[in-house]
Amino acid sequence: MEALPPHDICPITRLLEIVGDRWSFLMIRDVFYGVRRFDAMRQHLGISKKVLSDRLARLQQAGIFKKVPYQQKPERFEYRLTPKGRDLFPVLVTMMRWGNRWLDEGNSDVLKLQHQHCGEIVEPELVCSHCKQPLTPAKVRTVMVPLNDHTGAKV
Amino acid sequence: MEALPPHDICPITRLLEIVGDRWSFLMIRDVFYGVRRFDAMRQHLGISKKVLSDRLARLQQAGIFKKVPYQQKPERFEYRLTPKGRDLFPVLVTMMRWGNRWLDEGNSDVLKLQHQHCGEIVEPELVCSHCKQPLTPAKVRTVMVPLNDHTGAKV
Repeated sequence: MEALPPHDICPITRLLEIVGDRWSFLMIRDVFYGVRRFDAMRQHLGISKKVLSDRLARLQQAGIFKKVPYQQKPERFEYRLTPKGRDLFPVLVTMMRWGNRWLDEGNSDVLKLQHQHCGEIVEPELVCSHCKQPLTPAKVRTVMVPLNDHTGAKV
Repeated sequence: MEALPPHDICPITRLLEIVGDRWSFLMIRDVFYGVRRFDAMRQHLGISKKVLSDRLARLQQAGIFKKVPYQQKPERFEYRLTPKGRDLFPVLVTMMRWGNRWLDEGNSDVLKLQHQHCGEIVEPELVCSHCKQPLTPAKVRTVMVPLNDHTGAKV
């Protein structure tokens, strides 16, 4: 990367303002795993009720989680990902890949993803949507693009 | 995703134990941008000396940054990414993509990546290393794999 954008324009800054703490990422991960209910999350994460309530409220307010009833009488709710929340999947997958590659720390087993399309254990790979070649730091540069003109036009 | 791994085995948990705060991600991003010196980082991020020193030490200890002299008499240092640090590039790129897609907040310009290989403004895409098809939440499941047997064998 080359150009230095103002700190507050950077989309990474803006993402981290919303989910920039460890618990938020772990809670989003848990909902992907299928851990969707308050008590189950609390148990899986070993998190206090107060912190969990606070983060759940923030993630709902940010439009990442939605609260959905799964039972009447008494009414009970679970948390599901909105489309905005589901779209964080590539962030979590690339974190998982890095953790597996650099931090195995002597575990005998590691957690990987199996691709149901081909049946293989995958190494997730980041490619350019246009030429399908790998995206690497040496091959990209940052550019500022008008908001309504970032659909792939050459600059 | 389907299987529920123990919280502490998850590679995302382990990643977040190292870089699971907002400043660490932003500092790694800054070094990718070319902001490599203490004072430049402090100015760009608006961070206190104390917090910056603390996070720099932690990121060095974690093997993500290395301290390299750029001047003698007086000796001055800058921070560069190790291979382990550079390998966080896909995490930052997927964060950038999400921030641009969901949090433009009325900015007239957005920060994007231009791929020098094809010259296009890219939408980063996550694909399976084997079949090159997109990786989506519905098409993957989590599996536990022996550490020395995760090179792509079918399970």
